[in-house]
Amino acid sequence: MLEELKKRVYEANMLLPKYELITFTWGNVSEIDRETGIFAIKPSGVEYDNLTPDDMVLVDLNGNKVEGKYNPSSDTATHVELYKAFPNIGGVVHTHSSWATSWAQAGRGIPCYGTTHADYIYGEVPCTRCLEGAEFDEYEKNTGLLIVDTFKDKDYEAIPAVLCKNHGVFTWGKDGHEAVHNAVVVEEVAKMAARTETLNPEVKPAPQELQDKHYFRKHGANAYYGQGK
Amino acid sequence: MLEELKKRVYEANMLLPKYELITFTWGNVSEIDRETGIFAIKPSGVEYDNLTPDDMVLVDLNGNKVEGKYNPSSDTATHVELYKAFPNIGGVVHTHSSWATSWAQAGRGIPCYGTTHADYIYGEVPCTRCLEGAEFDEYEKNTGLLIVDTFKDKDYEAIPAVLCKNHGVFTWGKDGHEAVHNAVVVEEVAKMAARTETLNPEVKPAPQELQDKHYFRKHGANAYYGQGK
Amino acid sequence: MLEELKKRVYEANMLLPKYELITFTWGNVSEIDRETGIFAIKPSGVEYDNLTPDDMVLVDLNGNKVEGKYNPSSDTATHVELYKAFPNIGGVVHTHSSWATSWAQAGRGIPCYGTTHADYIYGEVPCTRCLEGAEFDEYEKNTGLLIVDTFKDKDYEAIPAVLCKNHGVFTWGKDGHEAVHNAVVVEEVAKMAARTETLNPEVKPAPQELQDKHYFRKHGANAYYGQGK
Amino acid sequence: MLEELKKRVYEANMLLPKYELITFTWGNVSEIDRETGIFAIKPSGVEYDNLTPDDMVLVDLNGNKVEGKYNPSSDTATHVELYKAFPNIGGVVHTHSSWATSWAQAGRGIPCYGTTHADYIYGEVPCTRCLEGAEFDEYEKNTGLLIVDTFKDKDYEAIPAVLCKNHGVFTWGKDGHEAVHNAVVVEEVAKMAARTETLNPEVKPAPQELQDKHYFRKHGANAYYGQGK
Repeated sequence: MLEELKKRVYEANMLLPKYELITFTWGNVSEIDRETGIFAIKPSGVEYDNLTPDDMVLVDLNGNKVEGKYNPSSDTATHVELYKAFPNIGGVVHTHSSWATSWAQAGRGIPCYGTTHADYIYGEVPCTRCLEGAEFDEYEKNTGLLIVDTFKDKDYEAIPAVLCKNHGVFTWGKDGHEAVHNAVVVEEVAKMAARTETLNPEVKPAPQELQDKHYFRKHGANAYYGQGK
Repeated sequence: MLEELKKRVYEANMLLPKYELITFTWGNVSEIDRETGIFAIKPSGVEYDNLTPDDMVLVDLNGNKVEGKYNPSSDTATHVELYKAFPNIGGVVHTHSSWATSWAQAGRGIPCYGTTHADYIYGEVPCTRCLEGAEFDEYEKNTGLLIVDTFKDKDYEAIPAVLCKNHGVFTWGKDGHEAVHNAVVVEEVAKMAARTETLNPEVKPAPQELQDKHYFRKHGANAYYGQGK
Repeated sequence: MLEELKKRVYEANMLLPKYELITFTWGNVSEIDRETGIFAIKPSGVEYDNLTPDDMVLVDLNGNKVEGKYNPSSDTATHVELYKAFPNIGGVVHTHSSWATSWAQAGRGIPCYGTTHADYIYGEVPCTRCLEGAEFDEYEKNTGLLIVDTFKDKDYEAIPAVLCKNHGVFTWGKDGHEAVHNAVVVEEVAKMAARTETLNPEVKPAPQELQDKHYFRKHGANAYYGQGK
Repeated sequence: MLEELKKRVYEANMLLPKYELITFTWGNVSEIDRETGIFAIKPSGVEYDNLTPDDMVLVDLNGNKVEGKYNPSSDTATHVELYKAFPNIGGVVHTHSSWATSWAQAGRGIPCYGTTHADYIYGEVPCTRCLEGAEFDEYEKNTGLLIVDTFKDKDYEAIPAVLCKNHGVFTWGKDGHEAVHNAVVVEEVAKMAARTETLNPEVKPAPQELQDKHYFRKHGANAYYGQGK
């Protein structure tokens, strides 16, 4: 079932090595079919060279496997929580991409220092706190809940990415491919933001009106970038 | 019309991914036919894998589309202002290349620390101020006007590049290909200048006579680099 | 003899350039046949482009060549000491990979700043002291003994890597391929740890419970990552 | 004439882009035939994609072109001085490779922080002062003389490389290929040395006895690295 979905999710997963976002199997993409509430996700720990569309695992929003010969990604429970809390998203990506993860390890959100960032992400990419104590019992689920909590006063559609402290990065989008696109964006702005701070330790985020201009050039009713609708 | 121009502009645009100056569609090249006052430019937001020469858009110096099935680059109005103010240039490039953009985000011009820089650019690559207030209303046009204003006391032929604060980099040249060449140079010197400062926080720009020697080895009446005229 | 072993060791050596862990011939992989106590190792100073499985050299645990037309790697005596002291390892890798070697040159172990590290290495990757005086007489052997001494109060199975001060990195695993895998991991975490410290000079290692969670997600009786046993 | 020499020099030049030591035409390799005192060198400013062995230019030790349809590299006069002053070298390379040039721009020699460096270069890679005043009149010749002067109390065979302040790097060797090999080594150790200092701002050069051990493991009467003579 959902063969088209599995094919798309397979293709989105194969973009992770193409864009050099992952080493070995350190990442995963899922995409959900909102009608059935079932999402396809990469199996756990299978090498990218050997993946096929048929290897994608189907999972429901209770985290139960619906179809598939493999175990789903060990991060599946995190994906479940994001799909449940963020109704307008259709795809989720998790990676340990190098620059974004360095910010996560530093425990810092990525400030918006320019239009490359503002074109896709409206404000700082937040960094969660670290999990602690009993939260480790259901680690992946609680990772998801902590992300959701981090966004309780933020717009998850305007900020389609989060850093998990001491861990890595999650991004999302209207489908798996857009979530991968956002993962590429976050890695690129993470790299440039780090270098920006080295070049100017006193640097401040880009002026709010510049952030507004660029974000709304591409998003919302008055967007005029690209070839229109 | 102007089929040759569109082909050249297409080829120059395809150099941006080849030289790793862009991610996704974050860049554009144009080249002008000075006789007709019409320039060809990349369409807005079309993926590089799908581009063809025929997709290039023809635009006049009032910013009006003359021919083309797509919308021109959203940065078209900036290109217009550069062509109008800098009569001896034939090509313009805009990118968010990583190192140059990091300097732009830091709000700093790139000092000339050596001959790699001096061979192509005579002195610091300047960084504009940020736009503000009402200037955002015609954002791309005002970006161009601000660049022109930044060069009111500089020689745009000797310094074929500018950083736009919190944004990215524009370069130019006698045609689209030379503008791309200068974009590669700026990215390379931006990278080395950043590392130079880390290695020696007290570093000063290269001596003026070294800058003179190298720049005029390649430019002007007494140039002797290459195979001559 | 041991043709299968030589083939595997050849293949594992060829992964070093693939993963960009080496420049020229600056690395080597070996794998041991514990039954005979003989290991296969790359010959010394032979270019990777010219290597064949048949060029691998067979050596016993006294460091004597058993078979092979070439001299074994000049680091052979180090491999011998590791195989003798660490009975559960089956493969050893040595490289001068760029980021790990930078930590070794800095004389610092690599702190565990996140789960990328904790998934494979339980705690800091230690850095030995430098050899001195008479230890240089049997340099490679003493390099091995110093590594063993560095692990006298550590678990070599939980920390499958060491930095040799002013030198490079050794990793190990159940076979040559796993040792290469660990060499890739160390290089990646070395890179991210360096950047983490630049982004936050006050950063502390990841909380112990996060390190525990991730390490034991992949190792030991309660592991649940991947496709199980 | 000297067809074999031209072929080797062509091949050595083609290694510069392969090892990512150059951007565009920013580098050149020469190799000398000591019997005739004639060396072959890359032509000036010709793109690498278009080079052929036949394009190499033959030059004598007075700097006069002996054969060739193109002008020789603009750095030819520097090569001449090195061949004249360093009788045991057979090849010379000049590049603006990124990390080495960053040290040159910082005006600093590259300290020996480890065995990667010590295996090929015995001690710090020195950095010249900048040329000044009348020295700019015969710029390339004086660059060569300044390098020679910098080595008046150094062993050019043990230190086959120099940084030219605010400029780039020259390396040499027994032939063009070995000079390229040394250019790769310098770029790699320049990169690692920079990162080493960031990781440990108080770092000292590697102990002298370690430098001795590694250099003489590969050089001189007691060398034992590789497959022997």
